[in-house]
Amino acid sequence: MRLQGVAAAPGIAIGVAKVMREEQRPERLPIRAEETDAELVRLAEAIRRADEELQEIGRDLTDRGREQEAEIFDGHRLFLQDEELIGKAQTIIREELIRAEAALDEAMRETVSLLESLDDEYLRERAADIRDVTRRVIRKLRHADEPLDTCLTDEPFILIADELTPSQTAQLDPKATAGFVTASGGKTSHSAILARSLGIPAIVGLGESLFQVQDGQRLVIDGREGVMLVAPAEEQLSAYRQKASEQQALAERYRAFVDCPSVTLDGASIELVANIGSPADAEAAARGGAEGVGLFRTEFLYMGRDSLPTEDEQYEAYAAAARAFGPEAPIVIRTMDIGGDKELPLLELPKEENPFLGYRAIRICLDRPELFKTQLRAILRASAEANIKIMFPMIASLREWRRAKAVLKEAKAELRAEGRAFRDDLETGIMIEVPGAALMADRLAKEVDFFSIGTNDLVQYTMAADRMNPKLAQLNDPLQPAVLRLIDQVIRAAAREGKWVGMCGEMAGQPHAVPILLGMGLHEFSMSGVHVARTRALIAKLDRSGMGRLAEAVLDLSDPDEVRSEVETQLPWLREFL
Amino acid sequence: MRLQGVAAAPGIAIGVAKVMREEQRPERLPIRAEETDAELVRLAEAIRRADEELQEIGRDLTDRGREQEAEIFDGHRLFLQDEELIGKAQTIIREELIRAEAALDEAMRETVSLLESLDDEYLRERAADIRDVTRRVIRKLRHADEPLDTCLTDEPFILIADELTPSQTAQLDPKATAGFVTASGGKTSHSAILARSLGIPAIVGLGESLFQVQDGQRLVIDGREGVMLVAPAEEQLSAYRQKASEQQALAERYRAFVDCPSVTLDGASIELVANIGSPADAEAAARGGAEGVGLFRTEFLYMGRDSLPTEDEQYEAYAAAARAFGPEAPIVIRTMDIGGDKELPLLELPKEENPFLGYRAIRICLDRPELFKTQLRAILRASAEANIKIMFPMIASLREWRRAKAVLKEAKAELRAEGRAFRDDLETGIMIEVPGAALMADRLAKEVDFFSIGTNDLVQYTMAADRMNPKLAQLNDPLQPAVLRLIDQVIRAAAREGKWVGMCGEMAGQPHAVPILLGMGLHEFSMSGVHVARTRALIAKLDRSGMGRLAEAVLDLSDPDEVRSEVETQLPWLREFL
Repeated sequence: MRLQGVAAAPGIAIGVAKVMREEQRPERLPIRAEETDAELVRLAEAIRRADEELQEIGRDLTDRGREQEAEIFDGHRLFLQDEELIGKAQTIIREELIRAEAALDEAMRETVSLLESLDDEYLRERAADIRDVTRRVIRKLRHADEPLDTCLTDEPFILIADELTPSQTAQLDPKATAGFVTASGGKTSHSAILARSLGIPAIVGLGESLFQVQDGQRLVIDGREGVMLVAPAEEQLSAYRQKASEQQALAERYRAFVDCPSVTLDGASIELVANIGSPADAEAAARGGAEGVGLFRTEFLYMGRDSLPTEDEQYEAYAAAARAFGPEAPIVIRTMDIGGDKELPLLELPKEENPFLGYRAIRICLDRPELFKTQLRAILRASAEANIKIMFPMIASLREWRRAKAVLKEAKAELRAEGRAFRDDLETGIMIEVPGAALMADRLAKEVDFFSIGTNDLVQYTMAADRMNPKLAQLNDPLQPAVLRLIDQVIRAAAREGKWVGMCGEMAGQPHAVPILLGMGLHEFSMSGVHVARTRALIAKLDRSGMGRLAEAVLDLSDPDEVRSEVETQLPWLREFL
Repeated sequence: MRLQGVAAAPGIAIGVAKVMREEQRPERLPIRAEETDAELVRLAEAIRRADEELQEIGRDLTDRGREQEAEIFDGHRLFLQDEELIGKAQTIIREELIRAEAALDEAMRETVSLLESLDDEYLRERAADIRDVTRRVIRKLRHADEPLDTCLTDEPFILIADELTPSQTAQLDPKATAGFVTASGGKTSHSAILARSLGIPAIVGLGESLFQVQDGQRLVIDGREGVMLVAPAEEQLSAYRQKASEQQALAERYRAFVDCPSVTLDGASIELVANIGSPADAEAAARGGAEGVGLFRTEFLYMGRDSLPTEDEQYEAYAAAARAFGPEAPIVIRTMDIGGDKELPLLELPKEENPFLGYRAIRICLDRPELFKTQLRAILRASAEANIKIMFPMIASLREWRRAKAVLKEAKAELRAEGRAFRDDLETGIMIEVPGAALMADRLAKEVDFFSIGTNDLVQYTMAADRMNPKLAQLNDPLQPAVLRLIDQVIRAAAREGKWVGMCGEMAGQPHAVPILLGMGLHEFSMSGVHVARTRALIAKLDRSGMGRLAEAVLDLSDPDEVRSEVETQLPWLREFL
């Protein structure tokens, strides 16, 4: 059987199916009135054991450098003291005289259905957490094992689930997990992001048909194609084994490039840096060969919490990320980019009709200078010990850039007055992700220190095609000649003013795009840490001057497919990097 | 008292307040069982009289050239036969033994609350219609007059309402109505659009405070500023009378330009045409001095109905619009632009996260060639007797243009095979409203016959700022230098290929923009019919070559405010056109 889903994380995995189904709802078993107290003690005991377990998981994750996930479990522990949830369960035991399992289940369902009825993504996510922690307590009441523990066999397995809960994913052992496949979710769902960050092949959005798969069946998944084979024939299996070993061999070859300098065939030096979302990412990226950070997304500091992060908290995070690379490596920190597809309930932003065209990033920061200045002060302080650069997102006009720069000047003046150390000449630049900014690049280049082209947004605005909308994939392609022309214009404008240009959109790591960007004169390529070594290997095979001619040629084409085929014609060996 | 609302339609109005409040809910008066039949007859009789009245209103509107509104009332007549609504009212009379007024009211509320609970704008609008038609029947049961009839006094009045219903607006006598003000609604609400199309000053979104106003109080409204004065002092009143008479005088002066040719001071001929949404608009635009149609929005043919319009229906509408101008006048018909902020339940399109960046216009048409070809055939047939041109909206890439052109070729081949007349060499062009298309204008200009720049969308994509979002008004400004540069690029690219360029966004009628666009070499200015005469008067004062220098100068500025002030410095007399 062959099933097609959404390709979520590339790679081939072969393993046995481990199907994770929703556990059964507990039966409403009656108790006698005189058993009430004993039942309440049973519940309290199960909660205590669940709490211990959560604490342990948190410690374990922290040890493995996965602090962000660890925080999720600290949040779960809070729910165990929640009056709404636990108090309600106790009341149900007392008044309805039923067992703790069913009482807690009922209390959870009431709370969850309330949260899910609200039109608030943050609260809906909390509903998933409450469901997760409740299941854990119920398992303790039943003295049942964690469902994932049973999976930890010797043979690699492929996880099959509706969607993975944070508990399940956090306890995943990447060594034993060959891949995973979920019925729901899209390219940006929790499981998909996790899979890519762990480097595990994954397919999502396969739909209900996924549950035809039986526990223990042999599976092959091709995460690049989004294809899953169930109980494949021997010749299929060996074909995929062949493909997997080829990919493995390539990965080995790339590994040789982890510690090389980034130099083209004709000796031009390029900067290969990483996009990161947390200090833990920074360490992983450094291990993967990144020379620094081209984009530090700082949103993680603001998300999933009840109060804004303090200046000290932020300072710690920025300094920790910089430490992963040492004092000379460039670390580009982007100021907060909330809004768009990233909601932040804390700011009480109005619901928007078109969030991608809405009130987001620098637009919010310029309206809330106190929030903005706290972040700028933290970044400035971290710059005292590292080569930190500041980058403003979503700049669309000179006015915005100048206003942001003015707030930065204030922050510097404050720190100076307080006698705090910072790098006064730290570089300050902007993302080029709004077409309006690209069109004004000649004027902006006179005032900024650098540009970093954010292609994910630039493409969607230039082509007026939502990057999350699968129907518009043909338009939403960074190789659209219109987009290439805009990028070329930006790099030229910066060059005239002697400013450097980087790119931190997904395009920067795409094999078809790298030769073109190199030819246009892009200085810095920033990408997910896992692509750095491959891109360095690719760049080592390219000569920069030849790529200049390629770049000129593709600017005259009319369609992304023509661009791709032109690149492949000129560089026939490129396929091995795809 | 001074109240501030949303400026919905410009102009100053002075008059007496006519407050339209929601009528009281009918009391549940009991009847005896033996009275049931008599009550059902009463209801039937009231329905019959309401139906007659609706028929009459429809005829009256049609006579006044307001066919689109007439259709709304045909829709109301259908509700009078609706089993859900009327059947339920009859059941309530029989089973609950209450009077028809209360029974019908109850049936209406059930139906309406069901519709309003659905997340479907189309059905929610139907709820407003059902409420409207039910009130009409209840008034017949009460032998009450239409509330609006009582307003038809000799003195001009200013209507105060929560939001105007279609019934109320359709029966409005523009001569007796000096203006109107609503508590709810925004710039694009039903009342606001109606006010602009009737040329009546209006303010919307004034909130509940509006209902402090008493019937018969003297009011002044300034529709450009969104300001309403209640019981103003004599000196305020005379200041506004002065302002009103100045505006009146200007309007008179513009009227002299209704029948002139559109020529600049130095003798260059320009084309001044209208944006229309229906054949009735075409007649009004022709009376207002438009030389043709630069944008015929064909969406009205698709909206608010249960089936797609047939080829013959569409042909009739296109031919009727063309007849308003005669066989030589250019009539640019834009193919369907559904999606974005215009929903069409009929097509069952999925709900989108960012509808403006979504599946809309040509993107839908290319996926549904049967729907697209029907429209193209209708347009082609209408071209047999008029100077019709076809325009495709939302083109973002050459591929889309070529695919659209291919469907047009098929449609022509079909008509040819059927022996039907059409203009084989009719001009075919595209809207430039996606930045990607503007950036590829040099390539597109080789293949199309003309461009028409749609600034409303072009600005929002270029600046990544939703045009409906009031927080982003500073960014969403067509005088943003980035936008001006893109427009300039498009006009130059077309000129190199000898193709003409028009503009059909709101910018084309804005006094600050007209001199710049003229200087850039724009050929055709398309705008709301009411602005044509003013723009012709403005153009008569401008010399084209001087404006070329102005255009060059503003391309070097960095902010829309600088652009405005540069234009005003060079053309100090421009203020009288604002």
